[in-house]
Formats: sequence, C-alpha cells, structure tokens
Amino acid sequence: MENIVIAVDAMGGDHGPSEIIRGCVSASAIETGVEIVLLGPKELLNRELKLQKASGMVRVEEAGDTISMDEEPAWAIRNKPESSIVVGNKLVKDGSAQAFVSAGNTGAVMAGALLIMGRIKGISRPAITVKCPMRTRDVYVLDAGANADCKPENLLDFAIMANSYLKSVIKISKPSVGLLSIGEERGKGNELVKEAYGLIERADLDFYGNVEGRDIALGTTDIVVCDGYTGNIVLKLSEGLVLQVMAEFKAIASSSFLTKLAGLVFRPGLMKMKERLDPDEYGGTLLLGVDGVCTICHGSSTAKAIGNAVLQAVNAVRGGVVEKIKEDLKGKPQLNV
Amino acid sequence: MENIVIAVDAMGGDHGPSEIIRGCVSASAIETGVEIVLLGPKELLNRELKLQKASGMVRVEEAGDTISMDEEPAWAIRNKPESSIVVGNKLVKDGSAQAFVSAGNTGAVMAGALLIMGRIKGISRPAITVKCPMRTRDVYVLDAGANADCKPENLLDFAIMANSYLKSVIKISKPSVGLLSIGEERGKGNELVKEAYGLIERADLDFYGNVEGRDIALGTTDIVVCDGYTGNIVLKLSEGLVLQVMAEFKAIASSSFLTKLAGLVFRPGLMKMKERLDPDEYGGTLLLGVDGVCTICHGSSTAKAIGNAVLQAVNAVRGGVVEKIKEDLKGKPQLNV
Repeated sequence: MENIVIAVDAMGGDHGPSEIIRGCVSASAIETGVEIVLLGPKELLNRELKLQKASGMVRVEEAGDTISMDEEPAWAIRNKPESSIVVGNKLVKDGSAQAFVSAGNTGAVMAGALLIMGRIKGISRPAITVKCPMRTRDVYVLDAGANADCKPENLLDFAIMANSYLKSVIKISKPSVGLLSIGEERGKGNELVKEAYGLIERADLDFYGNVEGRDIALGTTDIVVCDGYTGNIVLKLSEGLVLQVMAEFKAIASSSFLTKLAGLVFRPGLMKMKERLDPDEYGGTLLLGVDGVCTICHGSSTAKAIGNAVLQAVNAVRGGVVEKIKEDLKGKPQLNV
Repeated sequence: MENIVIAVDAMGGDHGPSEIIRGCVSASAIETGVEIVLLGPKELLNRELKLQKASGMVRVEEAGDTISMDEEPAWAIRNKPESSIVVGNKLVKDGSAQAFVSAGNTGAVMAGALLIMGRIKGISRPAITVKCPMRTRDVYVLDAGANADCKPENLLDFAIMANSYLKSVIKISKPSVGLLSIGEERGKGNELVKEAYGLIERADLDFYGNVEGRDIALGTTDIVVCDGYTGNIVLKLSEGLVLQVMAEFKAIASSSFLTKLAGLVFRPGLMKMKERLDPDEYGGTLLLGVDGVCTICHGSSTAKAIGNAVLQAVNAVRGGVVEKIKEDLKGKPQLNV
C-alpha cells in the first residue's frame, strides 16, 4: 500500500513551528504508512526537525511566505503563491498529498481550499464540521462558521456531507440528522429552516426532523445541521458555558478545607470529563465539501491538538470521505420542483 | 398610592389552576399594595381560593373559555373572546390591570398582547427577554423566540427596549449592549448583524459592539441582542448544557462510597449554584414592546415560578418600563439615511 501524505502548515498557529513539529513527530510515531510534509522555510524547519529527532517519515518542503492572522483571506491566497497555505492546498490539488492541516488564518485556509482544491461538483457550499462530545454521544454540528448566511440548498448539502462523513470515517452505519430549529414540529423555525426541511426530508437520509437547542446537549441526533452564524454561536456558547460551570465547581471546591479534600476525591472523575471535553483531543475541524481533505485547527493549538488533527486527517483519507460524498451526491434531490 | 393590579391566567400551564393559585397566594403575601385577579371559571377558582385561604387581595374574574397549547394563536385570539388569555389582555388594555401573567400557549399570549394591548408606537416588533444568570452577572438575551426572522430595525428596537428595561426596572444605570455575532470586529457576522450594527451604534446606548457565543457565558455585556431563532437556540442550549454537566457531576459523585461522601460536602455549594440557575427563580420572561406589561411563563411552571413571575410583573409596573420605552424611543435613530 502506498503511503498517505499529509501536508502540514508549519507556520500557522500562535505557538510557532516547533510546537507544530512536535505534534507531527508524535503523530508519525503512532501511525505507520503516513508521511508528513511540513511547509515553511526549509532551513528553519530542518533545524527544528533535527533537534526533535524526527524519523524519515517527516520531511520538509519549501514555503517561503506566510499569511498572517489578520490578512484578507481571498486576497492573500491570490497574492502569496509561496505561502504555506497556498503550497499546502496545491500539494493536495496535484495529488502529491492527500490532506492539508493548518492552524493558520482560518479564513485563508478556507479560501485556499475553495480556490485551489475546489468545491466538490454538486456541493453548493463547503462547511466546517465540529464534533461536540456530549454525554450520550458525539454530536456533529455543521456549519460552524464557514457560511454566515445560508440558503436552503446549503443546509441540504451539509446534511448529505455529514452523513457521508459519519458513515465512511466515523463508521456509524445510519447517522441520524437533525435540523436545528425552535420547535419540534415541522413548520417551526425561520424561513431558511422551513424551506430546508422540505429539501432534507426528500434526501436519502435518516432525517429526524427539527431539533431544538437542548437536543444538541442531549445528543438526540448524530448530526445537527444549521447555518454558519448559528453553528458558530452554538459552538462558542457551549465551550464558554462548560468552562464557566467548571470554574464554578472549582470555586466551590476551594471554599474550605473540607471541600478541598472532597475535591481531591472527585479529581479522577473530573479529569476524565475534562479530557472528553478537551478540544485538543479532537484537534481540528474538517472543512467538508472541498475536493480534498482539509483540517482546520485553532490558532492556539498545542502539539497534542496538531498531532490529533493529523491523525483525524489520516482517518478522513483512509475512510475516503471525499469519494463517499461524491458518490452520495448522486442521490441528492432535484431542487427545481 | 393606588393598588397595582396583576391579571393572572389561572387556566394556563401544565399543573392546573391550584398550582397557579398557590403561586399567586404566596406572591400576594409578600407584596403589599398588589391586587391579583385570577382569570378562569369563577366557581372553580373561588372554591380553590377558599381552600387555600387566600387574602382579600386575590380575587377572581370570569373567563369561561381556554386556549389550549396546540391551538393556532392568532385564530384562537380572534375566536375565543371569553378565553383567559383574551380577557387578561383586555383588562390591561382598558386599564383595569397593569400587567398580565400567563403560563398558557406562548404563541397565543404573544398574539393576544400584540393584537389587544397593541405595539408601542415606534417599536417594529416586540421581543421575549430572558435573564441568563451567569457567574459574573445576569445577561439579558432578546429576542428569545418571538420573531424567528428579523430585520435590522428589529434588532435596534430590541436594544433600545432592553436598555429601557434594565435602567427602569433592574436599576442598572448604563447597561452595556452586545450584538451577537461570530467575530468581534465590526463587519463580522451575517447580513442581518452587519446592517444592525450600523443602526445600533447610532442609538443612545452603551454599545459594546459584537459579542460572540462565549461572551454570553462570560457575562461580557448586560444585554445581548439577536434574532429570535438564534436567541431561542441560545436559551435552550444553555439550559440543556447546564443540566448535562450537572448530571455528569452527579454520576461522578455516585460512583463510589468515597465520592458519595465527598458529594455531601459539596452539596451546600452546589445547591446555591442550582438555585441561581433554577428557572423557577425568575419565573417568567417579559414580552417587551407591547403597550403593557406581559409576562410569559413556561407551561411547566410551578407555584414558585408563578409567584416569582407575578413579583417580576409588579417590579416591571413599578419601574414604569412601558413609559420608559416610550420616552427612550424619542432618541431612536432615523432609519432612512
């Protein structure tokens, strides 16, 4: 079997290339048959690689330019052909790599994937797909921010793509799909949701119907589909609330000698919960709908997050998510009824 | 000083009239100068009042009909003039009562308030205003579901109304206003938010600018303005997540003898937290923008929730929120620029 090649933007993220390389080195130690190509200034990266005693499965390709966090995405992609984000997307486009992982400017990574890898034919808009690790199951929410304004067809495509992803990569045989709304009954919601309902129910999906905000927390469905404005708010609110509740528990635990002691007893259970909720555990979010695997990491990603994002990208490639989406699109309902 | 009269729908809610009456009786025991008018079948309610030994400050007015939870709101309002929801709104409209409190069909209560009390002149759409008790401060989110689709002017009005409410009733001298979006910078967000930004910044408000999902949890601003679809999801997701995290702690606490013991030590702190987060504590949500005080309670409201909703309505009347909104509207920016 041929090696899987993952291109990694060594210049993205807040912690600099040595953190990213550390993540790649540890991912490469876990997975066999995976080649990691680090993109950035060759000399600098090679020096760091030597320091970290990387195996031959991690190598460097030159990308002499970088796109900073505040640059206008589309402009930067068009005007910085030597940047790590452009070079990484091109490697996937020409088949030299099967996936691109970056913790750089999110907008630029998305624009790069869209302009260079290109959209999958039949997909109206790509979407950021985020795993929310709830108690009862992992809930995949999309779009988590790629498209602030959506049309009904976009939501249909999100549902189809997420279904393909969960089937091929997460290995859930018949994922349930919920449409985020403000009432369970059909006909509840805003205009976008009401129209999207009629499209999604005609697709070959296990469509649950509308779900409400609380259903995300309850894990009512495997997939929750919404526009990118709402999805981004859902994601950030969830992170914020969990942190606040944790902080509140911490405050209770530190209020007296006795509660401090009790806190120690709770520690193992709490650590397990914290670990499950730790964003570093799942590393990145997939941009579904572009013609290649593209994993976007948070700017603050640690080595652990980068390593997990690389492994996630490997799984997406092995599962054949892009091919699966293309195949499933054949069953997409006609829109002009 | 004249008594404040609060009309209460005795027929709304899942627990029946005796639960609602219990709430009213206890509220009336707390507040002096408040008359409570219970609406429903006179005979039934009077019997219950006698059983509960209510004071003379709680009395009954006939409303022989009810609107059920699944009736089409506007139709029901037009066709059931004897229903408790129509009678209650009429009492406020003709000045016999200053506020209406109901745990009945939310859509019908809103439609009743809108059609009978009427909109405040200059307000494009009324909004449901919900208090989210965060660790650092109470955050008031609106619209929490009255308007699934909004125009920029609606969001401006929500900001103005919430500001008037917090100033006059909650007694915060200069409430900060955040616009819910998916990035802090001006220009981030969906089309609605981007346009609303330009309107809200011209109003006489302490406008913080965009806030993100996590800012609701952090308590970055006193007020968070958004469309009713998003606000409803924010509200229900928050409730759901807090319940799930609590359940998770409970599971940890019950995992062994030692953790059960430690759980007992944590109990007082946890109970305080639970009390703060308990929706029954704040009872109802205000429908701001109609020409009278209208408090909407959850169908599952307990006596405690109803009692607190009555007290909340009393405060809104005493604070003169409706007059304050009318006054503040004089400073509303012109839209046709």
